[in-house]
Amino acid sequence: MVRLGIGDDAAILDTQQADTVLTVDLLTEGVDFLLNEVKPQLIGRKALAVNLSDLAAMAAMPTAVLVAVALPKCCGERTGASPAPTLAPLLLEGMMPLLQKYNVALIGGDTNTWDGGLVISVTAIGRVTEHGPLKRSGAKTGDRILVTGTLGGSILRHQFLFEPRVNEALHLNAHDRINAAIDISDGLSLDLSRLAAESNVGAIIDTHHVPIADDAKELATRNSQLATRNSPLEHALYDGEDFELILAVSPEEAKQLLATQPLMPTFGVPLTDIGEFVAEPGQWLRDQNGVMQKIMPQGYVH
Amino acid sequence: MVRLGIGDDAAILDTQQADTVLTVDLLTEGVDFLLNEVKPQLIGRKALAVNLSDLAAMAAMPTAVLVAVALPKCCGERTGASPAPTLAPLLLEGMMPLLQKYNVALIGGDTNTWDGGLVISVTAIGRVTEHGPLKRSGAKTGDRILVTGTLGGSILRHQFLFEPRVNEALHLNAHDRINAAIDISDGLSLDLSRLAAESNVGAIIDTHHVPIADDAKELATRNSQLATRNSPLEHALYDGEDFELILAVSPEEAKQLLATQPLMPTFGVPLTDIGEFVAEPGQWLRDQNGVMQKIMPQGYVH
Repeated sequence: MVRLGIGDDAAILDTQQADTVLTVDLLTEGVDFLLNEVKPQLIGRKALAVNLSDLAAMAAMPTAVLVAVALPKCCGERTGASPAPTLAPLLLEGMMPLLQKYNVALIGGDTNTWDGGLVISVTAIGRVTEHGPLKRSGAKTGDRILVTGTLGGSILRHQFLFEPRVNEALHLNAHDRINAAIDISDGLSLDLSRLAAESNVGAIIDTHHVPIADDAKELATRNSQLATRNSPLEHALYDGEDFELILAVSPEEAKQLLATQPLMPTFGVPLTDIGEFVAEPGQWLRDQNGVMQKIMPQGYVH
Repeated sequence: MVRLGIGDDAAILDTQQADTVLTVDLLTEGVDFLLNEVKPQLIGRKALAVNLSDLAAMAAMPTAVLVAVALPKCCGERTGASPAPTLAPLLLEGMMPLLQKYNVALIGGDTNTWDGGLVISVTAIGRVTEHGPLKRSGAKTGDRILVTGTLGGSILRHQFLFEPRVNEALHLNAHDRINAAIDISDGLSLDLSRLAAESNVGAIIDTHHVPIADDAKELATRNSQLATRNSPLEHALYDGEDFELILAVSPEEAKQLLATQPLMPTFGVPLTDIGEFVAEPGQWLRDQNGVMQKIMPQGYVH
């Protein structure tokens, strides 16, 4: 797949077997991570994982990445263990397990030092499989809204430890009829609204069905600066960085998927039905009594 | 070529006609540009052009770019004209002429704001033509060293106004036998040493043949902080950001190229023979009297 890796002016990939999927995400110190609170390896891992999550949302097979960094010239005062010269290898070390797990080649990069904070830009490259890509635009009125995993637990731990749903997306795309997909980077409510908008539909979230992460419950009980929401449900609806998948599937397909839970035995991840797509544009919360409340989609805005 | 552009989780390119060439370069405020001294449009232009220059060095046809930025939250104090919300459009405006000239699609991006300085990361994608890629590794003992354009003028103006040698590289690769190529991003001496190292050869630079830019001569006469070298020749040898091409060609091919100057009528750029590749690894300067001086390659080191 890699015809020419690191070491020339550019890398060369053999891409003649399939269309190529490309995405870039840039992480900045103070916004996406705190250099003095998080191990550099976890920062490197996150920078890679958020990009793999974007490829997963397209059901693309990851193949390669390019990594560009701006390293602080002197960061001894912010992280005892990691002055600039050692920061780059630690970031890379944190990427290695995911690179190996998904057989992704590091084919290029650009290493800079400057007077500012740490910035990491990762470009991820994948290929469309024979089952085609998943897009945001395929949801239909009446489709069920499914999500993988549990939501709202990003702040405490999950944002650095989440597993990009690459294999889950490839599996579902190969075996089931998925009409549309997006990954939750900025919050269930906000990313669901993006998928719905691209599909020209609206969405109703059945709040009592939203699978809430244990960490969201723990966080909501804390009297800390991190507990920025009023309830575990609000963390699940509006916090960013769950990096789970939102899927649109027909009611029949949803019934089948929920009955067989194909991701549970294979990948250990549950699928949950949290609502439905409707013809009228907009977003609603519906409680267990059927009471509807129209909301403005919220989430993390960069 | 673009199957799916901006607006989904990732972009999709039709890449099934040829191998794909990829490169990333990240520019930081204070190192690659000063936000309070340079128009944002020129910063955007430079961020794109340095990447197109890398594609040119591979003789790749540019097709698409992804652009990720970290925008300063508040930069009013550093550039009166460009607070953060307006900075992104101005950067893009500066990229437009080159995007249009080379028919390059902007297929994705990531826009962030933070408390730090301006950072721009551009990933450029190209395709290998039917004439194959140019690599650093093909120079042979006895090959001549040719360069495009004039050197050493980057500091005053050229670093923001240079033309990436995309069309020149495509033309030469299609019509002539070029054994190896690299673009000058960090200085003639340093980048020549990189090409030589990849080719397992050494290089002799005939200093009296190095084509020196008028701006290098002007700069050397100034008593300013910018005049960091002792002579115009030193600017041409060691300053970065010329973004001209270094080419390795056989003596016969060089004779033909210098006699016909194919880039002059077509693109207005001269080709100059500045020395030769030799079997012994290392780098030498040779003056007009034939006196040789072995040097350690120098240039701009990130």
